[in-house]
Amino acid sequence: MTSIPASHRLLLDAQVGVLATVSATGAPQATALWFLFDEADGAVRFSLNTARQKTKNLRTRPEASFLVLDPANPYRTIELRGSVEVAPDDDYAFAAQVGAKYGGVDLRTMDQPGETRVVATLRPRKVLTWGE
Amino acid sequence: MTSIPASHRLLLDAQVGVLATVSATGAPQATALWFLFDEADGAVRFSLNTARQKTKNLRTRPEASFLVLDPANPYRTIELRGSVEVAPDDDYAFAAQVGAKYGGVDLRTMDQPGETRVVATLRPRKVLTWGE
Repeated sequence: MTSIPASHRLLLDAQVGVLATVSATGAPQATALWFLFDEADGAVRFSLNTARQKTKNLRTRPEASFLVLDPANPYRTIELRGSVEVAPDDDYAFAAQVGAKYGGVDLRTMDQPGETRVVATLRPRKVLTWGE
Repeated sequence: MTSIPASHRLLLDAQVGVLATVSATGAPQATALWFLFDEADGAVRFSLNTARQKTKNLRTRPEASFLVLDPANPYRTIELRGSVEVAPDDDYAFAAQVGAKYGGVDLRTMDQPGETRVVATLRPRKVLTWGE
């Protein structure tokens, strides 16, 4: 478990971060998304719709970089790099945990018929910070 | 030249965006950085220090994704994906243009002895927007 510097710990309470993944052809993709940081195991987890390109990318290439910018100062950032494990969340149990962080949103209402969700778990191998 | 939707054009006047690149081993990297959007040719340009990992990544794999979050609403974003051309900026001519956008900063003062700069030009092949 890679530790998070105390100076930048609060950034992991932000609403949104940027997840970078890589497509099968090697092209990067970056998208803003919701996340949950788990203090207990140091992992960051995302609830991803299975129809999205980033989900396909992670299934093919299970490596990601996650960057959080301080909402009050975009020059203060924390980047977590590591491998990603993708697991089913067909019953939306993890999605409900994410919804709870975001004011009780029901993530099912964001999906189309026939789509489902997975939990993507990023375990930081390397942690980089910028700014003080 | 791929056009920028009018709804999200102002995001390209932001101070900072997130550049995602890919390492030689296929791992993504994401960093916040300064940029200049050129209305004339639709390209986004960055002044990069040659010692940085992202510069090495772009020289090996000239593909990038650049994401800008609306400072007022992180759910409004624009992502530009495309190939990147890296050219020398040994005389810091382009770095001076970037410095002018950021209150007259002299980018030479940000570099160490022996380092120099390049201009990285991202020509968007695909433009994706989120939010209204």
